[in-house]
Amino acid sequence: MEDKKKISIVCFSGDFDKAIAVFTIASGAAAVGYEVNLFFTFWGFNIIKKKKGRSFVGKGILARVFNFLMGGFKNLPLSRLNFGGISPKLMTYMMKKRNVATLNELIQASIDLGVNFYACEMSMIILGTKLTDFIPQIKEVLGVAKFLEIARGGEIIFIS
Amino acid sequence: MEDKKKISIVCFSGDFDKAIAVFTIASGAAAVGYEVNLFFTFWGFNIIKKKKGRSFVGKGILARVFNFLMGGFKNLPLSRLNFGGISPKLMTYMMKKRNVATLNELIQASIDLGVNFYACEMSMIILGTKLTDFIPQIKEVLGVAKFLEIARGGEIIFIS
Amino acid sequence: MEDKKKISIVCFSGDFDKAIAVFTIASGAAAVGYEVNLFFTFWGFNIIKKKKGRSFVGKGILARVFNFLMGGFKNLPLSRLNFGGISPKLMTYMMKKRNVATLNELIQASIDLGVNFYACEMSMIILGTKLTDFIPQIKEVLGVAKFLEIARGGEIIFIS
Repeated sequence: MEDKKKISIVCFSGDFDKAIAVFTIASGAAAVGYEVNLFFTFWGFNIIKKKKGRSFVGKGILARVFNFLMGGFKNLPLSRLNFGGISPKLMTYMMKKRNVATLNELIQASIDLGVNFYACEMSMIILGTKLTDFIPQIKEVLGVAKFLEIARGGEIIFIS
Repeated sequence: MEDKKKISIVCFSGDFDKAIAVFTIASGAAAVGYEVNLFFTFWGFNIIKKKKGRSFVGKGILARVFNFLMGGFKNLPLSRLNFGGISPKLMTYMMKKRNVATLNELIQASIDLGVNFYACEMSMIILGTKLTDFIPQIKEVLGVAKFLEIARGGEIIFIS
Repeated sequence: MEDKKKISIVCFSGDFDKAIAVFTIASGAAAVGYEVNLFFTFWGFNIIKKKKGRSFVGKGILARVFNFLMGGFKNLPLSRLNFGGISPKLMTYMMKKRNVATLNELIQASIDLGVNFYACEMSMIILGTKLTDFIPQIKEVLGVAKFLEIARGGEIIFIS
């Protein structure tokens, strides 16, 4: 009678603090038996790009420049109080000191707990990104219709 | 037995990239048979104002100044990397080059597919905006209670 | 047969305009019989801290500095157009002039209507915040699993 325990998160943001929120919810939900689907789009690609630093990926010079400016995993900014990149380092330091899982550990936990990772087709076309630019956990490339089908019957949250 | 296929999106943001996300989901969902309800509020008014540029709409001098500063459809900023307005133009250029629908085309597709457009009553009161300031697709002005009633039984996402 | 009328809001943001959105939805939903659960996390702590101004709360010097820089209720910025703190004052002024409830009044209405306030355990650990740093309406400190259990069967929205 009850809906399946399922939560699907659209990861639009590439901010460090919001990425922590995404993977805290993802790993926490998976740990208590939820099916968890992460759908990365646009700025969220910075979280799942294979190259951790800035890189000129993408087809076409404008896409490459845009991707370079977007940054990568090592350059995820804080949504506020970024201080030229010091804050994410400071936050990671505080997380380690308190024995709270860091972003990398939360991502690894999510992978280990079977969270599904998907990438947004349209963002890939706009940015000229290829599936091989992403970490291997990216299971599939999806459009809106397929995403809604996967998310159906569960919760959807959008992290912008 | 199943819930009706319905998705309701609160469009709080007036960012160009987030507006693309809103109308990509809206048109994609409508195309596969979803009832789609868009509820524009606060900064999201910039997407649905009739006057495309900056304008002094609203009742009272402060509301007018605030509305002017908020901008309009032509001034939707990117949520990051705005470069003084160059990036939305660059993104539109890349979308055209890749044969992906632009924001204007996504909005038109949403209208053609029967997506419902609503405006938030309280934001209109605060900003002194009138129904005639909006594009004619705005169907109705709603408070929270009416919005929840319309959205009930489907998904709700909030784009901030 | 129908789901219980329930909405749960994750308040990740500490922006003034988004806080107004949170409490407009919360009080509006509670007024028409919804169970409303607010889950404050990270920047959202600025909305529920007892000390209204900037303060060095938290355990450890880095946490204290971080909390000071985060600000407090009196320093909630606007997500755009902040003009050094003038805009939230301007918005409050416009809200009063139009006889719309101000943020403080919306919070009080939410409390009076029985909205539940929760704080995020992990954010408290990272930031070294104690339950006594918050306003007394904070009912309980929750992790992700408990939050999902409370939110289950209703809508979840995430305000980032």
